[in-house]
Amino acid sequence: MRDFDETTITEAVVERFGATPDPRLREVIQSLVRHLHGFVRDVEPSFAEWEAAISFLTRTGQKCDDKRQEFILLSDTLGVSMLVDAINHRLPEGATPTTVLGPFYVENAPELPLGAEVAQAMKGERLHVSGQVRSAGGAPLAGALVDIWHSDEDGFYDVQRPAEENASLRARFRTDAEGRFHFWTLLPTAYPVPTDGPVGEMLTATGRHPMRPAHVHFMIAASGHETLVTHVFVAGDEYLDSDAVFGVKQELIAEFTRAPEGHRVLQYDFALKRLG
Amino acid sequence: MRDFDETTITEAVVERFGATPDPRLREVIQSLVRHLHGFVRDVEPSFAEWEAAISFLTRTGQKCDDKRQEFILLSDTLGVSMLVDAINHRLPEGATPTTVLGPFYVENAPELPLGAEVAQAMKGERLHVSGQVRSAGGAPLAGALVDIWHSDEDGFYDVQRPAEENASLRARFRTDAEGRFHFWTLLPTAYPVPTDGPVGEMLTATGRHPMRPAHVHFMIAASGHETLVTHVFVAGDEYLDSDAVFGVKQELIAEFTRAPEGHRVLQYDFALKRLG
Repeated sequence: MRDFDETTITEAVVERFGATPDPRLREVIQSLVRHLHGFVRDVEPSFAEWEAAISFLTRTGQKCDDKRQEFILLSDTLGVSMLVDAINHRLPEGATPTTVLGPFYVENAPELPLGAEVAQAMKGERLHVSGQVRSAGGAPLAGALVDIWHSDEDGFYDVQRPAEENASLRARFRTDAEGRFHFWTLLPTAYPVPTDGPVGEMLTATGRHPMRPAHVHFMIAASGHETLVTHVFVAGDEYLDSDAVFGVKQELIAEFTRAPEGHRVLQYDFALKRLG
Repeated sequence: MRDFDETTITEAVVERFGATPDPRLREVIQSLVRHLHGFVRDVEPSFAEWEAAISFLTRTGQKCDDKRQEFILLSDTLGVSMLVDAINHRLPEGATPTTVLGPFYVENAPELPLGAEVAQAMKGERLHVSGQVRSAGGAPLAGALVDIWHSDEDGFYDVQRPAEENASLRARFRTDAEGRFHFWTLLPTAYPVPTDGPVGEMLTATGRHPMRPAHVHFMIAASGHETLVTHVFVAGDEYLDSDAVFGVKQELIAEFTRAPEGHRVLQYDFALKRLG
């Protein structure tokens, strides 16, 4: 086919993908072409705008390395990550809501005994965290793997501190026979998503702040259950209603109370969706 | 706002961009959010599919360097570049049709006298190219800058040959008092777009060939006129109906005839759209 115009080219490209052997890939890419062309037709970009978009995407890819994932950050700040999360977690009553993984998860954090301290050299107010892991609407889950990570009082994760060679504010625990876990750490604070890349440019240009309300990340895995990826947010944080990545859910906001001894306390229970 | 679900999150993100100071940026990014979310809702990607998309985009950015632009290639192979071209060139009767710039344009090619040879050390069948540049529906344009570039008989551009230190099959000419130009070069051949990156993976996975029909690129600039970016395609090429970047227009196909002396001959005239 030749001589496409601005209305015929879309179906020509869709047709060109018609021979895709894998039916799922064919469905996805044909839908992508229709939506992407629809966007272009709606906004009618000039060449300069198209070049700016190419440059933005290129620099976003080039900002990524083993500790930084700028395209995930872009997906997060455009609300796409939470949309994908919502689509993949149509949860049963009683299951803990999910939220984004975020860019600071690191695989294979140290596995520590219950009651351990995970602060290492990082600074902040002392925090005791405890909770129980259950099957949604069912029994406690012994031996569940509870992976936790969060920022320090300056709003930085260990991987953002070049001087931090060891994992800090990051660990994995196994729940006991009653599905319980507990550990000592520091109170997390609100922090900005990284703003020294293209996503930071986008936030600045659109008048958006880069802040996330204070939270502790949890990833909880137990056999026979869907792995739960979520955060628990600190009640009262000023950014709960304007999280830069749209990750807040009411049920995930908890009081981080003050103990008589002066430290802070989080007690939060989790319920995992049964598989199959 | 909190507790977005898969239908409310889109308007929440659109609203978050509502304070964008620049009205054009606001229009573009709000449209992007609606179309991007619409795509995600249509295909309902699994997390593994979302991760594959993040990885594809990341690797596409990382494949780019000063001689390779994989995001432009992605835009080209998805038909987006030709759509942007069509939107930006609603041309008057008589103006030469436009087509994609392509990834092999290099700025500031050597400016050579009319009649020069541009083949350098590259190999192929000899080709004489000549033509006249006019204002669409008007007079010949003297002193127009005619920038040309194309591939050799193996389908490679000079920038794809690491051993080629000098510009080859690439030059700029000034039209004479009658708007005419002419030079010697080699017959271009059909060639594949680069397939050693993510776009190559995409073409393979979707059962598409990477070939472009043989062509000579022209970029023609004259004062008071819109710069013309186009190709002239070799009539009879087997890929004219399935160009990997959807760039063929009937009017841009020309006979590359054989002269009595044995070499090939292209004679093609161009008409530029007047500005304003």
